Amino acid sequence: MLTDIEIAQQAKLLPIAQIASELDIREEELEPYGRFKAKLNDALYNRLADKKDGKLILVTAINPTPAGEGKTTTTAGLGEAMKKIGKNAIIALREPSLGPVFGIKGGAAGGGYAQVVPMEDINLHFTGDFHAITSANNLLCAMLDNHMQQGNALGIDPRRILIKRCLDMNDRALRNIVIGLGGKMSGIPREDSFCITVATEIMAIFCLASDLMDLKERLGRILVAYTYAGAPVYACDLKAQGAMAALLKDAINPNLVQTLEGTPVIMHGGPFANIAHGCNSVRATRLALKLADYCITEAGFGSDLGAEKFMDIKCRLAGLKPNAIVLVATARALKYNGGVPKDKTALENPDALKKGIVNLGAHISNMEKYGVPVIVAINRFPNDSEAELNYIENYCRENGADFALSEVFAKGGEGGVDLARKVCEAAEKPAHFQPIYSIDSTIKQKIECIAKEIYGADGVDYTGQAEKAMRDIEALGGNELPVCIAKTQYSLSDNAALLGRPTGFRITIRDLRLSNGAGFVVAYAGDILTMPGLPKVPSAEKIDVDAQGKISGLF
Amino acid sequence: MLTDIEIAQQAKLLPIAQIASELDIREEELEPYGRFKAKLNDALYNRLADKKDGKLILVTAINPTPAGEGKTTTTAGLGEAMKKIGKNAIIALREPSLGPVFGIKGGAAGGGYAQVVPMEDINLHFTGDFHAITSANNLLCAMLDNHMQQGNALGIDPRRILIKRCLDMNDRALRNIVIGLGGKMSGIPREDSFCITVATEIMAIFCLASDLMDLKERLGRILVAYTYAGAPVYACDLKAQGAMAALLKDAINPNLVQTLEGTPVIMHGGPFANIAHGCNSVRATRLALKLADYCITEAGFGSDLGAEKFMDIKCRLAGLKPNAIVLVATARALKYNGGVPKDKTALENPDALKKGIVNLGAHISNMEKYGVPVIVAINRFPNDSEAELNYIENYCRENGADFALSEVFAKGGEGGVDLARKVCEAAEKPAHFQPIYSIDSTIKQKIECIAKEIYGADGVDYTGQAEKAMRDIEALGGNELPVCIAKTQYSLSDNAALLGRPTGFRITIRDLRLSNGAGFVVAYAGDILTMPGLPKVPSAEKIDVDAQGKISGLF
Repeated sequence: MLTDIEIAQQAKLLPIAQIASELDIREEELEPYGRFKAKLNDALYNRLADKKDGKLILVTAINPTPAGEGKTTTTAGLGEAMKKIGKNAIIALREPSLGPVFGIKGGAAGGGYAQVVPMEDINLHFTGDFHAITSANNLLCAMLDNHMQQGNALGIDPRRILIKRCLDMNDRALRNIVIGLGGKMSGIPREDSFCITVATEIMAIFCLASDLMDLKERLGRILVAYTYAGAPVYACDLKAQGAMAALLKDAINPNLVQTLEGTPVIMHGGPFANIAHGCNSVRATRLALKLADYCITEAGFGSDLGAEKFMDIKCRLAGLKPNAIVLVATARALKYNGGVPKDKTALENPDALKKGIVNLGAHISNMEKYGVPVIVAINRFPNDSEAELNYIENYCRENGADFALSEVFAKGGEGGVDLARKVCEAAEKPAHFQPIYSIDSTIKQKIECIAKEIYGADGVDYTGQAEKAMRDIEALGGNELPVCIAKTQYSLSDNAALLGRPTGFRITIRDLRLSNGAGFVVAYAGDILTMPGLPKVPSAEKIDVDAQGKISGLF
Repeated sequence: MLTDIEIAQQAKLLPIAQIASELDIREEELEPYGRFKAKLNDALYNRLADKKDGKLILVTAINPTPAGEGKTTTTAGLGEAMKKIGKNAIIALREPSLGPVFGIKGGAAGGGYAQVVPMEDINLHFTGDFHAITSANNLLCAMLDNHMQQGNALGIDPRRILIKRCLDMNDRALRNIVIGLGGKMSGIPREDSFCITVATEIMAIFCLASDLMDLKERLGRILVAYTYAGAPVYACDLKAQGAMAALLKDAINPNLVQTLEGTPVIMHGGPFANIAHGCNSVRATRLALKLADYCITEAGFGSDLGAEKFMDIKCRLAGLKPNAIVLVATARALKYNGGVPKDKTALENPDALKKGIVNLGAHISNMEKYGVPVIVAINRFPNDSEAELNYIENYCRENGADFALSEVFAKGGEGGVDLARKVCEAAEKPAHFQPIYSIDSTIKQKIECIAKEIYGADGVDYTGQAEKAMRDIEALGGNELPVCIAKTQYSLSDNAALLGRPTGFRITIRDLRLSNGAGFVVAYAGDILTMPGLPKVPSAEKIDVDAQGKISGLF
């Protein structure tokens, strides 16, 4: 059996100019980056501004096992399958983060015969968007520390700095550091911390900004620190937003690539789905909706995190209306949710499946609350039993969701034809999209609504720290913003060990943070690590390149 | 008067495919990055491998004032002037570093009507080479700290780690830090330090590697730390070189851009000229020599630093033989070297000129020691007096150097015609290039040779620390390598205050370091700051971008 990178390297890619030309993109609207990647510029936006939007299809998932359920694979395969049934579709995805590539994970651009290519480029530097975000973030941090060093006219309190430097690298030794040591010439000593680039507020801003000027304004609104007197300090107080936006002026243009079968893919941005909203840029989605009849997009983690935020944050902000939701699950993950240990999920186990399938039920009913038709896609594994698959299919029908098997990993687009047909049917049904909470309610009301309606919690508790942070954020206008709850992806609750469909629990909000530029309030239901570490044997040790520039070990 | 960026933005650039086609570069040898930048790939290298080299012209300078003497401007203008006199020339330059752009300096791609464009792209992310180097460096550091965290099988001593993380940013607060705090899950606490990307050994390696495999091997040879037992630990012991080389596989291909008048420019790499060798990549120079009859290149700082290293490190390693040396000076800098304060150098002052011109004399005679013809190029300023210029011209003739006025800043190529003619004449003379010291001598002999022959010192003293470091480095085979002396650029001595042509001084080597992958021994004659800071009012505060993506404030 071939690895993902071997399959990707055997593929004969179409020149990106050809992919663009099939989308009626003009030469002057395309900025090539090598032969197989390109950026789409404002000329294209402007020309298509009044064109009618295609249908918006969101791919989400149940609570994943640590291996993931194959959302990106299903998304890529569904895009390929649409072509097989004669439909004109485009895919909108997040760009992968560089750091995890060197850790456990390997690549993150789909798998098997449903991948986005050029796989190595996409997983390494791609077109440099994340490097630009890293630079913009670190410029802001350098300007802040420099401001304090040069007299601190704003009176910034070095104990109350909210922004962190970042690297797109898994580097745990930078989680807790002390900077500014070495005497008067080398800065003000203070505690600090690096996060991974995808966890920065700038990444979230980048993905929510409608254009370069909106981006610049949002960058200026970032709450960077408080003064000794307790007053907020914003990035615009440091006059940083112009230079930061200049660093992002090319990055803000979405990237065009393709699947193994030549389906166009727009990949752009990639925020975390816990402390941020977890989906590709608004600009990419809007552009994709103009370029094809169907835009298939994805949100991170399970639907309790990714889809909730996609709809309550991104769709609300950008005025998007999803027409159908594909909920990806695997028989393995349902058995895992039924209490089977990870290494036993491949074995047939009807009791565990029956016990764990309530997790799927929760996600179906949650998605229906948004008023959008749901299709469950089972990402099929070779030894899934017919009996188990039939059981899942029946369960879906009884719970009001459509059902399709997806074999795109093994077969490419051909393995997603049934799914594609059902998605097209669903997208013709009337959708009555509405967010789960009203933007006019208080922060607490919003959190409670998500906790009860989506997580199934009985209620929400707040630590003293959270109550204090809430008052500070409300004083700065935070009540007017949507909330972004950061919690574990492994459970509907805030406790990773509670699998299936837990009941009788409350969630605890430990702290809150204002992502003022992004325009949401982050509520922490648990400790979220924003700087991963490398494992005992990092995959970096196996990655190699030969004299012809061919990369291996990026699986 | 227009600023550099205004001049650059008014220019009508030729499509990069046209620049390439005029050099007979084939479509498949070119990787476009947008419309006006491209990378040149191995297919081109391989096709031209047996072609005869053009003439190699090095542009260097006297000891600069803090404002710089216009080396890059002269280089760009000379390239443009070659076309005016019917010669076929190409320019090879370093890529500018991003960090200083936000500090005092603004852009670094020439000035006035002798600039390399697209100026904004070149000064910001360009084609991402420095970001790739930053990533490769920080991956190595993360793997090292992870190794210690995961049991430290190699026995690395956290007090003897030699590599530093980097950012391409002026960020003094990262000069001296403590990392790995926060308990068992977050690393081994230790002292650490960030440097700016251009100061990393990886940047030096990148610029000396002949191809991707040589790059990988050199990366593996980086001395990263010592064990508790005092044994050396190399990057290959961490199995890091494969993934690092994979991160650099595109970056290693040189970039093609153009001057304002459409002269082709290969820009690639950019190491410091103190702790490293200060010139563009070997690959860029070699390729440039194949592509045109004249390759005009540049080395950092004055000839005591940049040209010495260009010849003793780069030319020796790569088998290059320079045919002529252009020594850039300004009347202002000569008066500055005669003791006139910076803000008074524009005023006529024959006495100061007479006193300071000995600095030029030292650089002429130093360059002659390498057996290569020298042309002094005076970068003319509007209020330079005829009397002063005549005085300099006569001085050059009496000292065996050719002389030309350069007005390329104000006039573009037209202002460099006389210089271009003289360069072509000089390049026809027999050159007998030889390095200043023999590679077979000891580290101390090499340092002494440079100190006496180039700096004019009476001798060299070593601190106890330096003596100890010398023994360690000799034990690892350092005697076989060239030396790279890190000292102030403002004086021929190791004391920035000694202007003109100081005599009767000794230099002090405070420490040594083995850049084992790059293949040289760094000798520190003074404290070299490898992480700059931002000034009181950083230029970042003035940089802005408008709705059309047009950047301002990058002067």
